Amino acid sequence: MSFITDDFLLHSDAACELYHDYAKDEPIFDYHCHISPEEIAIDRQFKNLFEIWLAGDHYKWRAMRANGISEEYCTGQATDYDKFLAWAKTVPETLRNPLYHWSHLELKRYFDIDTLLSSDTAEEIWNKANQQLNTPELSVHGILKKQKVAVICTTDDPTDTLESHQQIARSDLPTKVYPTFRPDKALTINQLEAFKAWVQKLEQVSNGDCTSFQGFLEALKQRHDFFHSIGGRLSDHGLENCFADSCSETEAATIYDQARLGKEVTPEQQAKFASFMMLYFGHLDAGRGWVKQLHLGAIRSNNTRQSAKLGPDTGFDSIGDFNQVRALQQYLDTLDRDERLPKTIVYNLNPSDNYLFATMMGNFQDGSIAGKMQFGSGWWFLDQKEAMEWQLNALSNLGLLSRFVGMLTDSRSFMSYCRHEYFRRVLCNLVGQDIEKGEIPRDMELVGGMVKNICFGNAKNYFDLIL
Amino acid sequence: MSFITDDFLLHSDAACELYHDYAKDEPIFDYHCHISPEEIAIDRQFKNLFEIWLAGDHYKWRAMRANGISEEYCTGQATDYDKFLAWAKTVPETLRNPLYHWSHLELKRYFDIDTLLSSDTAEEIWNKANQQLNTPELSVHGILKKQKVAVICTTDDPTDTLESHQQIARSDLPTKVYPTFRPDKALTINQLEAFKAWVQKLEQVSNGDCTSFQGFLEALKQRHDFFHSIGGRLSDHGLENCFADSCSETEAATIYDQARLGKEVTPEQQAKFASFMMLYFGHLDAGRGWVKQLHLGAIRSNNTRQSAKLGPDTGFDSIGDFNQVRALQQYLDTLDRDERLPKTIVYNLNPSDNYLFATMMGNFQDGSIAGKMQFGSGWWFLDQKEAMEWQLNALSNLGLLSRFVGMLTDSRSFMSYCRHEYFRRVLCNLVGQDIEKGEIPRDMELVGGMVKNICFGNAKNYFDLIL
Amino acid sequence: MSFITDDFLLHSDAACELYHDYAKDEPIFDYHCHISPEEIAIDRQFKNLFEIWLAGDHYKWRAMRANGISEEYCTGQATDYDKFLAWAKTVPETLRNPLYHWSHLELKRYFDIDTLLSSDTAEEIWNKANQQLNTPELSVHGILKKQKVAVICTTDDPTDTLESHQQIARSDLPTKVYPTFRPDKALTINQLEAFKAWVQKLEQVSNGDCTSFQGFLEALKQRHDFFHSIGGRLSDHGLENCFADSCSETEAATIYDQARLGKEVTPEQQAKFASFMMLYFGHLDAGRGWVKQLHLGAIRSNNTRQSAKLGPDTGFDSIGDFNQVRALQQYLDTLDRDERLPKTIVYNLNPSDNYLFATMMGNFQDGSIAGKMQFGSGWWFLDQKEAMEWQLNALSNLGLLSRFVGMLTDSRSFMSYCRHEYFRRVLCNLVGQDIEKGEIPRDMELVGGMVKNICFGNAKNYFDLIL
Repeated sequence: MSFITDDFLLHSDAACELYHDYAKDEPIFDYHCHISPEEIAIDRQFKNLFEIWLAGDHYKWRAMRANGISEEYCTGQATDYDKFLAWAKTVPETLRNPLYHWSHLELKRYFDIDTLLSSDTAEEIWNKANQQLNTPELSVHGILKKQKVAVICTTDDPTDTLESHQQIARSDLPTKVYPTFRPDKALTINQLEAFKAWVQKLEQVSNGDCTSFQGFLEALKQRHDFFHSIGGRLSDHGLENCFADSCSETEAATIYDQARLGKEVTPEQQAKFASFMMLYFGHLDAGRGWVKQLHLGAIRSNNTRQSAKLGPDTGFDSIGDFNQVRALQQYLDTLDRDERLPKTIVYNLNPSDNYLFATMMGNFQDGSIAGKMQFGSGWWFLDQKEAMEWQLNALSNLGLLSRFVGMLTDSRSFMSYCRHEYFRRVLCNLVGQDIEKGEIPRDMELVGGMVKNICFGNAKNYFDLIL
Repeated sequence: MSFITDDFLLHSDAACELYHDYAKDEPIFDYHCHISPEEIAIDRQFKNLFEIWLAGDHYKWRAMRANGISEEYCTGQATDYDKFLAWAKTVPETLRNPLYHWSHLELKRYFDIDTLLSSDTAEEIWNKANQQLNTPELSVHGILKKQKVAVICTTDDPTDTLESHQQIARSDLPTKVYPTFRPDKALTINQLEAFKAWVQKLEQVSNGDCTSFQGFLEALKQRHDFFHSIGGRLSDHGLENCFADSCSETEAATIYDQARLGKEVTPEQQAKFASFMMLYFGHLDAGRGWVKQLHLGAIRSNNTRQSAKLGPDTGFDSIGDFNQVRALQQYLDTLDRDERLPKTIVYNLNPSDNYLFATMMGNFQDGSIAGKMQFGSGWWFLDQKEAMEWQLNALSNLGLLSRFVGMLTDSRSFMSYCRHEYFRRVLCNLVGQDIEKGEIPRDMELVGGMVKNICFGNAKNYFDLIL
Repeated sequence: MSFITDDFLLHSDAACELYHDYAKDEPIFDYHCHISPEEIAIDRQFKNLFEIWLAGDHYKWRAMRANGISEEYCTGQATDYDKFLAWAKTVPETLRNPLYHWSHLELKRYFDIDTLLSSDTAEEIWNKANQQLNTPELSVHGILKKQKVAVICTTDDPTDTLESHQQIARSDLPTKVYPTFRPDKALTINQLEAFKAWVQKLEQVSNGDCTSFQGFLEALKQRHDFFHSIGGRLSDHGLENCFADSCSETEAATIYDQARLGKEVTPEQQAKFASFMMLYFGHLDAGRGWVKQLHLGAIRSNNTRQSAKLGPDTGFDSIGDFNQVRALQQYLDTLDRDERLPKTIVYNLNPSDNYLFATMMGNFQDGSIAGKMQFGSGWWFLDQKEAMEWQLNALSNLGLLSRFVGMLTDSRSFMSYCRHEYFRRVLCNLVGQDIEKGEIPRDMELVGGMVKNICFGNAKNYFDLIL
């Protein structure tokens, strides 16, 4: 019998009805991910299941390491097949971990494979998947069509030329692919060398002159404009917590000049500079009607030895216990006082802070747009059933679930579109249970309409992207 | 079919039996709220559904703003009916928010309205409710009788003359209405002008002389005595976190004198002064056998622009992430060392701190009175099913649920007595489920008795109010 | 009808099957407790139910105090029987508290008593239990055999001679009893007198010379070696949060010398010294292949008045809100950089930190051993159904449940072996529910195997103790 049944995760009749009649057929609006636009542009064809499924997946590496698999089979020199075998051996040990669900859902949806993955079934699954990966149905474009992906917003540095995006726009791919402006490197003025190199790239790509701070700000605005011209309507920032210790433009300029001269920048100066820049980026977004995203609370590269060898994003990140409230309040409030607070989505990584974030966003709803301030969907370690339910419940209890822009993949892999299905099943199960318990009315037009909007309609209205 | 059925929120036979046989008919003991004693004294009759239901309700304003409703229809100049229509339009968007439950429960219990509120049904409901609001059954006294409200404790400044309370006591209203001593303004010595004005009022109302700190303390004691003479047996404090940085009376007096002379008070001095005062208030409460309430963890008026226009309590407050443990421990311990720790209820606003608070209260149970130290019921943003369950579970697992003094409305509206019904249903559902699962015995005398006590009996015994 | 049925806490067929076929019969591996090795050595026979069940149980004292029972009947001078009566009177008031479950489970398993304990049944139960306590079946050895306790790891000071352990090893008790190295007193150099006295004991027992810091370190290593020779393979530390502010050996030696001379040690110096020592203990454990345990987050002896009278561990401890992440990261990372990070179990006391701890442990899984870094089982206040489920879910979602070393009693009482049964029922119920919902496969070999491993097999492999 199949593990991934039609009613997987749907534990009531109402849940099934909501999912099958309202959620399932909605297109995918993937407004935040780390997918490679180049691979879309060239319509990449994957050689084997390792390439499309395991390469670069730090979730799987963490599980494998915890399972006593040596690094050679995670990020090391083992062959693709041996790495796949090591993963196959680990899968049965991931019972109750989201990887167990995701993996089998992905095998089912991409390759129609029903068999549970283990050492015993690894070879059969490897062969069956690889055969299909050679067909056009499983090229990148094939996948995007089959998965009904209407929109992808990639995550891009301001210095990116966005050539791939332009190339995709000229192709006949029905999926719209837009860039997201992520200027994290503009904040790290304390890393003198890296900052300098980055400013040089910025100068080149913007045809600007960054010898002065004013020129630096103009170059960034030029890039923001350029992203806008390509269709971009989102920005994004990855921060431990908000910067909310701002200074005057003159003081920011002084710090900028000091860094340009190669003189060390103190942590306090960096905080001030970053705070100033974050307000500047807020103004850019507000001015253009963009949506600003804040990813708050990760503590990265905690394992010095491994991070030194393997670099960032290799599975050594975790959840921080930063105090978030005051700084977030000050950031949003400063923009709002100026009437330049853009539409904003805040993603929280520490589930203990869900209620804090959900209430804080409510303080800046100003009646201008339904759901202007969004408490974003379960992110990273929270991208699983239990934590998705927490996010949905916090949002429901403290804000308006009906105005939620819903799910995103946040992924680096083209195998991850099932995360939307996963989310929709969790959502329908939760809401369906409420119907069965009489806690919301058994009015399928009302409730199903809400579900449908969370799957697609709300995002479509909110982001103002051209579809 | 009705949404608010007889068995609303009761998902098992045991839950239904507990609710209908043990909980439902208990009177209401509303030991903390922000209701206006004047409106009770004059037996206010409400003109329309807006007046009794929407005016002053910041929960609803938050939902409306999140729904894209402009301020004109929340706190602004729109007509009563147009504001009601804006609210009606928002209600279907509040699915899964407690407002959806509260609103329909209130319409049902106060007006016997079964129709779900929406734009389509707004006019019909407006008319039906307004008709009834013109009858004596829905004057304030009518409501209190129908809702079987045995006790109301209002929240009052020490400078209040309590005339309304005295007037009510002379009336034939069967509900007992008592004041609560809330001296928050005695702590904010750093707000020089406001503090000075408040001390003047205190001098007048107490016939005291506050030129010296000793006089100030005596005036406060005089007011505490006066509240006691009117029947008051509770105090209350709203704090971000406890003040626990005390100083000698001499040092407090110095700070007081400095403020009287109009010289700025530093944050450290304010903290010391407030810490001293909090101990003083603890001594007053312990001396008279009162119950002290501490509301901890709110962060208020976060939206500067809107708060400047609309003032406090207009829907711009949220949950803080203060460190609570050390300061609470020091406050309670300092009073206890002196054997002057009063009965205390602590209300927590950050659900992540439930376990911390529940264990801390346990450290100061001294065997003198069952349930002397109370971990208070779900407050403000936590006054909904999910968070009520968290509070009940934390208290159950870490203390004695059986000794819990139960629910309060914390409300500014006479429409809120259904919150007690809501709480009782949640409680019976939770406990009933335990019975069905065999996790507590199916002994209805035992379990029903506990439920009954939580609804009324425990509060009656605990607060020592004259009924 | 019996309260503790065969299927107590097992709410589905799959749960029952998992428990009865896979969990129930596994031996008990109690790798952390505070049981007295002397009482095992002498095969203590208990005089009455008070001695074995109430003496020293601060959980029960907390409940009794909260129930308005005066200290005389908790820790005071009342007779054994009167104290038992006071407890019996409290039991019905503990509905929904884990004590209600534990107490009845213990009465059932140790004395086959099915009656619910209350004032009415107290005398009958007292007599029935005491009769049995006089038989060899309920001596300490009798209990350990009946409860199938395969391993006990006690908690021991480095200065302990471990005579009882040696005596037990020579006896024919089938239970293996090993010491755990708990050097908390080596860190508190700021308590000059106590530290000096402790160092003297250390000198004596190790036959070492602690006049120099080098000698102190050698003496500790000698004791670590000695514990190893007796079969010990675990260390343990009880800390508010990790010490991660290390210094050079020279600086640590300076602080040591200063303390030896009776000169006050500042908090900063104590933190540095403790940080240095914690790294040293990490090296000892890594060098010998031991498992290091960290118990983090308790805030102890909060009630000054009572703690002064009654001493530590008398029921005045609670959960702290310390920031844990950075210090834990720095401690583990420092050891790992050196390739001297031992197998480690971290126990968390604040449930809001579960996700933080579970992700942090994942950063240091290095593929050398399955489950090298363990997010430990629900501890102290978290040793109950709700919090056990939280721990299991956090571990499942963020790591590998299948590699979990499972439950321990952490207890001071020989009546507590039912905690393992309790945990197993909670585990089987949770996992069984997943099977019923189709969220894990109905493959009893796979899932039952995992359950079995969590009950015993994983601990057996992980700890390297001689069985």
